[in-house]
Amino acid sequence: MPKRGHYDRATVHAVLDAGVMCHVGYVIDGQPYVTPTCHWRHGDRIYWHGSSASRMLRHLKQGVPACVTVTHLDGFVLARSGFHHSINYRSVMALGHARLVPDEAKLEALRDFVERLFSGRWDELRPPTAQEIKATTVLWMDLDEVSAKIRTGPPVDDEEDYALPVWAGVLPVSSRRGMPEPDARLAPDVALPGYLRPDGGAS
Amino acid sequence: MPKRGHYDRATVHAVLDAGVMCHVGYVIDGQPYVTPTCHWRHGDRIYWHGSSASRMLRHLKQGVPACVTVTHLDGFVLARSGFHHSINYRSVMALGHARLVPDEAKLEALRDFVERLFSGRWDELRPPTAQEIKATTVLWMDLDEVSAKIRTGPPVDDEEDYALPVWAGVLPVSSRRGMPEPDARLAPDVALPGYLRPDGGAS
Repeated sequence: MPKRGHYDRATVHAVLDAGVMCHVGYVIDGQPYVTPTCHWRHGDRIYWHGSSASRMLRHLKQGVPACVTVTHLDGFVLARSGFHHSINYRSVMALGHARLVPDEAKLEALRDFVERLFSGRWDELRPPTAQEIKATTVLWMDLDEVSAKIRTGPPVDDEEDYALPVWAGVLPVSSRRGMPEPDARLAPDVALPGYLRPDGGAS
Repeated sequence: MPKRGHYDRATVHAVLDAGVMCHVGYVIDGQPYVTPTCHWRHGDRIYWHGSSASRMLRHLKQGVPACVTVTHLDGFVLARSGFHHSINYRSVMALGHARLVPDEAKLEALRDFVERLFSGRWDELRPPTAQEIKATTVLWMDLDEVSAKIRTGPPVDDEEDYALPVWAGVLPVSSRRGMPEPDARLAPDVALPGYLRPDGGAS
C-alpha cells in the first residue's frame, strides 16, 4: 500500500472544510456507535451540535473518548486487476474528548456554522430564542490527535498488466449543489439570496 | 423532532445500495475509531474488505462489536430561524459483530463488489492470484439490528415565522459521476466499456 498519511494542519483543515457531514464514533457499554451529523471548524477545533435530548450528545458531553471522521469520495480507480482497484478520496480522522460549548458561547458557535455554509444568512434569520439556545447542545474537540489520508491519481497496476486490453483509469465522483427549491410558503417578494445563486456560495 | 426512523428491510437496503462508502466503528482499548471504507450488500448482509494487514480488519475479524453507518446528504434545509435549519439525508446504522468471509467464498464476494458498481467488469479483469486473495480480508455483518433515518421535504418553521421576509426552502445536494479519465498507459484500441458511458451503469 502506498503511504497516504498527511498530518500537516493545512491539509487537515482543507479536508474538514470541504465537507458538511462528519461521522462521530462513541462507545456505550462496549458497543460502538457511528452517528452522522454536520460539523464545522473554527481554528484548530471541530464543532458539531444537535438537540440537547440527543443520546449521542448527552453521552459525549461527559468527556468520554470520541472519534470524528470526515470523508470525501473523489472517484473510482479502475485497474486492470480487481486487486488494484481503489478509490480516490480525502479523509480526516480526529481522536479526542468532546467538550461542551458553554451557554454564553453557543450563539457565536452556531453563527459560525451558518455563516460557513451561507455567508450573510445569520443576520437575515429570526434570531434564536433563549429556549432554542437551551435546547441546543454544541460540542467541540481539539484537533490534536488527527490525521488525513488522501489518495489521488490513476491506478497503479502490476507492470505486466499494463499491456492487457482492459479499460483502466479514473471515474470521478463529486458532490454538487442543485438549483434552490423555494418553500411553498415563501413570503412574497423574497429574492434568492446571493449565497444561493449558482455562482455564489461555497461548493 | 419529527420521527425519522424507518425499519423496513426494503428501505434499509435501498439506502445501503445507493452508497459506495460506509463508516465502520470499532473500539480498541476503550477508544472508538471510525474508518471509511467501501461496502456492498448481498441479501441481508453488508460486506466490506481491505488489506489483510489493515488494523481495522484484523481487529474486527475477531468478532468484536461493530457499527456500520452509511449516509447520503441530499440537501440543506433552510428555515426562517437558525433553529429549524436541517438537512435532508438518508442514513442507515447497523450494529453487530463482523464475521470473516472464508477463503473459499472470498472470490464470489469480491465479484459481487465489482459487479455491483460496474456490471460486466469482473470478467474483463486479469483474474486474481492466490496471493492476492490471501492478502485480502473480506468481512460481513448480518443486518439484524439495523435502522434507517430519512429526512425529506421543506423546512418546518414556527407558524408565526412563515410571514418573515427570509428565503426558505431546500438546496439539493447530490453525488454525481464525472467523465471517465482514461489511464495514460491504456493499451491501444481499448474502448470505453458500456458501464462507464454516461447513460449506463449505476448512479
